[in-house]
Amino acid sequence: MTNLLILSRHADAYRRLVEAARLPDLAIVSSEGAADRAVDVILGEPSLIAPALPKHPGVRWVQSTWAGVEPLLDPALRRDYILTNARGVFGALMSEYVFGYLLAHERRMFEKHAAQREGRWDPKPPGTLRGKQIGLIGVGTIGAALAGTAKHFGMRVKGYTRRSSDCPDVDAYFHGSPARVAFAADLDYLVSIAPNTQATRHFVDATLLAALPPHAVFVNPGRGSTVDESALAAALQSGRLAGAVLDVFEREPLPADHILWRTPNVVITSHTAALSHPPDIAGVFVDNYQRYASGQLLRYRVNFDEGY
Amino acid sequence: MTNLLILSRHADAYRRLVEAARLPDLAIVSSEGAADRAVDVILGEPSLIAPALPKHPGVRWVQSTWAGVEPLLDPALRRDYILTNARGVFGALMSEYVFGYLLAHERRMFEKHAAQREGRWDPKPPGTLRGKQIGLIGVGTIGAALAGTAKHFGMRVKGYTRRSSDCPDVDAYFHGSPARVAFAADLDYLVSIAPNTQATRHFVDATLLAALPPHAVFVNPGRGSTVDESALAAALQSGRLAGAVLDVFEREPLPADHILWRTPNVVITSHTAALSHPPDIAGVFVDNYQRYASGQLLRYRVNFDEGY
Repeated sequence: MTNLLILSRHADAYRRLVEAARLPDLAIVSSEGAADRAVDVILGEPSLIAPALPKHPGVRWVQSTWAGVEPLLDPALRRDYILTNARGVFGALMSEYVFGYLLAHERRMFEKHAAQREGRWDPKPPGTLRGKQIGLIGVGTIGAALAGTAKHFGMRVKGYTRRSSDCPDVDAYFHGSPARVAFAADLDYLVSIAPNTQATRHFVDATLLAALPPHAVFVNPGRGSTVDESALAAALQSGRLAGAVLDVFEREPLPADHILWRTPNVVITSHTAALSHPPDIAGVFVDNYQRYASGQLLRYRVNFDEGY
Repeated sequence: MTNLLILSRHADAYRRLVEAARLPDLAIVSSEGAADRAVDVILGEPSLIAPALPKHPGVRWVQSTWAGVEPLLDPALRRDYILTNARGVFGALMSEYVFGYLLAHERRMFEKHAAQREGRWDPKPPGTLRGKQIGLIGVGTIGAALAGTAKHFGMRVKGYTRRSSDCPDVDAYFHGSPARVAFAADLDYLVSIAPNTQATRHFVDATLLAALPPHAVFVNPGRGSTVDESALAAALQSGRLAGAVLDVFEREPLPADHILWRTPNVVITSHTAALSHPPDIAGVFVDNYQRYASGQLLRYRVNFDEGY
């Protein structure tokens, strides 16, 4: 029998979803009684799992309900278990977020909305995504989903990755720091879906921003740590960058006195780009449990050293 | 030699584009000298062609730069020529318009924009298009493009047509007036891209609107004549319909005292959903001229009786 501990704000929903899957040889243990029994597997949020991990030395597998697993990468914590994240389920939601805001920009939605409030007929022609160029920082499962939607709308896709180059919807790949300028030089949209690692910290800095054309728009539904926020605010304030759509920040909620609240052409979406939906995540867990029970490799395994 | 007359606000652009295609046996005649020569073909806007038509009895083919050809359907005008419209080029633009506003609705973009203006972090979760149901009134080339994008975002697609049922991205077809209620009953989004004909006039009336679920949103990038605007305003004001995104109206520009300017949950986009781009339309003309010159059937031929 495998004992599963669920540590989540949505624990009741996950319990119902996992029970409904009638998985063989699986018992769900309650968080109160968990100390008395051997916990083999934990499903839940990394922020709740990290403090509980030392109490459960028998854990062999942790399924994160998030894509990011930063709390579990703390060097003080053990790493002698299999950690899997929820990588596979956010692509479609991220696509809706990114292309929703790209279309809002092309169609001048906020401008037209303001004209309407004044009762003004506004025949100013909109732009189109067709023929435009998008650059993706990071091409994992989310990046691949974004590339597919970009192709659907007739865009050209550039990808910046550490080394991978296997997504058929990416037209050109770039690797390594010196390639950053060539990657950025002719983009209409730059989108960061890079994970939070030492290598991606402040990847979007003054140099990269200066390499973008002035009509470009930066979209960040990834991680706040990948952006030098002061450099971004300066680029927007001076007009060297046309706009930014920001879902994540170095500190969240974004502090009330933060300069980005008062920076022109910024859209702030308060970390709602791709929220975990328990039914989607439960599907990842159920699939991985079946692999776990039959001794197969689990999907979406995190490499502790690389951090994703 | 075939003599082409261009009657368009963008005549210079069309002349350059047609000349660049180096079509065989084609001479472009100027609008001033056109009366002296036999004009065989006209390319341009129906509103400019209709008054000129009687002066050119030799015309055998008219290529409209618009999708709608209402001015040329006037019963007082001759119908002894081939009329083709620009049906094939608006699908991608219409898709950007419709799905841009569907995503704006799901992502609560205007609500989040208002929160941002107040400096308020707004973690309210957005919705998703995935699993939602869209109903298309009219499934020609534009409807097929919308259906394809709906499928890309994981939606279910219902189509209401006179009789056609050949688009593979439409999950269920409905025909005939009694089927209107079943068509509308479970839609999240209703989109009209029906042409302006006698049969479609006020198709979206109080009965159809009452059949929609109260959380539904109506989108009209098609023709203003297909909507009973008083019934629409009443449905929105009473909350029996959640919203409307309107590009076209019975009178345009929408008069300053029109009730729709003051109706809640209306987005007005001032007839900009899919503007004719001369390079796209010129492509349709060039393709059709090659068919015309070699005696093949032209694409996008309008049936004068059906009006599209």
